[in-house]
Amino acid sequence: MMNGDATFVAPATPFGHSGIAVVRINGPLACQILSILSKQKLADTRYAKLTSLYDDNGQLIDECVVTKFQSPASYTGDDLIEVSCHGSPVIVDKIIKTIIDNGARLAEPGEFTKRAFINGKIDLLQAEAVGALIKSKSEAAARINRQTLGGALSKDLNNINLDLISVVGKIEHAIDIIESEIEITFYREIILEIDKIIKNSQRILSTFKAGKMLNEGIRVVITGKPNVGKSTLINYLSGSEKAIVSNIPGTTRDIVESMITISGVPVRFVDTAGIHVTDDKIEKIGINKANYEINSADLVLYIYDDPKQLEFPKFDCPSIYIFNKIDLHKNIEDTDSIIHISAKSGLNVDFLLKKIKKTMSINPISTDTPHLISQHQYSAINKSLKSQEKAKQLLKFTSPELELVAFELRASINAIDVVLGKTSPDDILNNIFRTLCVGK
Amino acid sequence: MMNGDATFVAPATPFGHSGIAVVRINGPLACQILSILSKQKLADTRYAKLTSLYDDNGQLIDECVVTKFQSPASYTGDDLIEVSCHGSPVIVDKIIKTIIDNGARLAEPGEFTKRAFINGKIDLLQAEAVGALIKSKSEAAARINRQTLGGALSKDLNNINLDLISVVGKIEHAIDIIESEIEITFYREIILEIDKIIKNSQRILSTFKAGKMLNEGIRVVITGKPNVGKSTLINYLSGSEKAIVSNIPGTTRDIVESMITISGVPVRFVDTAGIHVTDDKIEKIGINKANYEINSADLVLYIYDDPKQLEFPKFDCPSIYIFNKIDLHKNIEDTDSIIHISAKSGLNVDFLLKKIKKTMSINPISTDTPHLISQHQYSAINKSLKSQEKAKQLLKFTSPELELVAFELRASINAIDVVLGKTSPDDILNNIFRTLCVGK
Repeated sequence: MMNGDATFVAPATPFGHSGIAVVRINGPLACQILSILSKQKLADTRYAKLTSLYDDNGQLIDECVVTKFQSPASYTGDDLIEVSCHGSPVIVDKIIKTIIDNGARLAEPGEFTKRAFINGKIDLLQAEAVGALIKSKSEAAARINRQTLGGALSKDLNNINLDLISVVGKIEHAIDIIESEIEITFYREIILEIDKIIKNSQRILSTFKAGKMLNEGIRVVITGKPNVGKSTLINYLSGSEKAIVSNIPGTTRDIVESMITISGVPVRFVDTAGIHVTDDKIEKIGINKANYEINSADLVLYIYDDPKQLEFPKFDCPSIYIFNKIDLHKNIEDTDSIIHISAKSGLNVDFLLKKIKKTMSINPISTDTPHLISQHQYSAINKSLKSQEKAKQLLKFTSPELELVAFELRASINAIDVVLGKTSPDDILNNIFRTLCVGK
Repeated sequence: MMNGDATFVAPATPFGHSGIAVVRINGPLACQILSILSKQKLADTRYAKLTSLYDDNGQLIDECVVTKFQSPASYTGDDLIEVSCHGSPVIVDKIIKTIIDNGARLAEPGEFTKRAFINGKIDLLQAEAVGALIKSKSEAAARINRQTLGGALSKDLNNINLDLISVVGKIEHAIDIIESEIEITFYREIILEIDKIIKNSQRILSTFKAGKMLNEGIRVVITGKPNVGKSTLINYLSGSEKAIVSNIPGTTRDIVESMITISGVPVRFVDTAGIHVTDDKIEKIGINKANYEINSADLVLYIYDDPKQLEFPKFDCPSIYIFNKIDLHKNIEDTDSIIHISAKSGLNVDFLLKKIKKTMSINPISTDTPHLISQHQYSAINKSLKSQEKAKQLLKFTSPELELVAFELRASINAIDVVLGKTSPDDILNNIFRTLCVGK
């Protein structure tokens, strides 16, 4: 959490040839360095000015649009300058190199957002939402992350903490007076208040599954013997779906991926083409690569095309068995456990998608409320809830130990403070910012 | 050249997850559409304002920094608005879709620059330099393109045209008077003036080879039998060179590319790994894929590792024969026509690079002067020069036909005007702008 005095620089736009590229420089030296590069005083804050930038030999690097965002009214809260240059990696490199030569250093991943957090512009939940928003794979995911970034979830959690603090105050008051002076209704009222807090915490916790699903999506691995139509199914899914985000050529020769969105949830299909499932060992698929894919799957689609096949491999995750090429076998009997499709013509593929939706419980998700999205958020709120429940249990004893109740409630408050970044340990903070890209 | 009234929109930054992304909207409706999306009047020109943008259902899309560049003081000369949003393709898509729903259309490639050209902000040479600058593969290339964009080459060509116009004026005056009244020194003086123009035109023409080389680079194809060390050489070149621009995984499984810069010239090495050169047909390599690569090569490196090999394939372009694995064959005789290296240890690879430099005449290129970079520029200036030379020849006859001289000089002026875009046919214009990316 140091480096408050550092001035750092990074490209803020992706690598590539494009109309423009943006370089961001943040920190106390930002204005001074840009004055050196531009051989002039910078324009007023937020005024986008066409400015020639020169290297240390006085050679023109590029004509850029330079905009200064003066502290504290900037994304980071520090002096922040955006340089919009021609979209050439060579020019971007040269500008960054020249800025570094004049006293800045390259930014760490997420460092701009980290400064915004340190300067109190955003809390930790919002900082996490920045990364999630950028990586959003669907409109629905972007919308829930946008809400968290806007502070909706922070407000909900802050309200829970305010309620908890109010209850703790009442309990601490009760601790200070003689037990006989505590009103007969006191414990019941406190329990009612805690019940309300528990309900709110549960409501927030319940958003995690959908939030995670919207952000991370579902990984569907397609497997089966060679030539049963795995690639054909992937191709059909890619072509039939208007909302294709990308068709990703595999990192290895044998894995090809395709992504479609089902009810706003990104569903990634992974084709384990070339995986050979031997007849002798059909219960357990023996090839490492396929195993790796299958082990990381949320759902496995097992495809076969031999109507005589009776035994099927078992998987550790949910799976759907698919008989392909029904166009070649007219008189196949329908069963409940097997879906019959033609990957080539697309016959019954819509039915398969419905089955996937049902198996994975993909339900229409309300994007009007904020959602928890990361495991550490879920764990912390869950810990907070557990303390609330313990506090409630303690209050049900005759003559409750109020110190213990107050202890649990304070633990509950602390757990929420960790999510908001008020009391987060450095390693949690660093992990969160490190997952952001350089330049954010 | 129509569509002056259209409002168009495009992403100005590359596709990808990043700190920010920029969307540009240009045209008469730009301000009105952004007012609708932001539910407010836009800020003053060039003031970068944090602005929430909403979709047609009133749902918040993103909080963006919106900057208006009011006509005529914008890149295009039209009203131009830059929207800087979170760097998520999903958000960029949503913003562009909403802007299109409100009356804009998607920009054609190069359309922003085309508007700048139509509005007289830049000439055609400068417009071409925009595309070349963005695609620059080295600092040296960026610098010469930067100079053309700054107008240095336009100024040189305009000066030639001014000189030509002056000569034409004198000749037309001479046509109007009686031949006997023409001074005895007239023809000699005119020839001297044309000589100066010819010299300037030749000087500009001579920049083409270096300009083309700096921008397009040199394509070196590495070939030879399997396992002679082609990939090893590519890997060594990639690792040894600090100025690597990229290591590009091939579009096919067998072709892997790597790029290094030699004296500012981008040199792309293409590895035809897996190409089998049979012993029987060693004169002509028989595999289509390798042929394709070799036919598009500027230079072929043929690698072999059998000291007994005496016959070598012939190529249509310059080639260098390389005996690899000298570490395994200590007592190899050195010859002039063959370079002996160890791709593994890097022994003599520096010598190979020098040989490449010499073979391809890569000389240190002055980046202080502008360079011609495209074939159509070269052809037009060459045409202009030919007319100048014809005019000079005509003037050497006794009693020269001054009308013919004036005709040639006017043709010379026209050829230069085509390069500057003053009289360019639509198809030339369209071709030039179409090669730019969408969003520029």
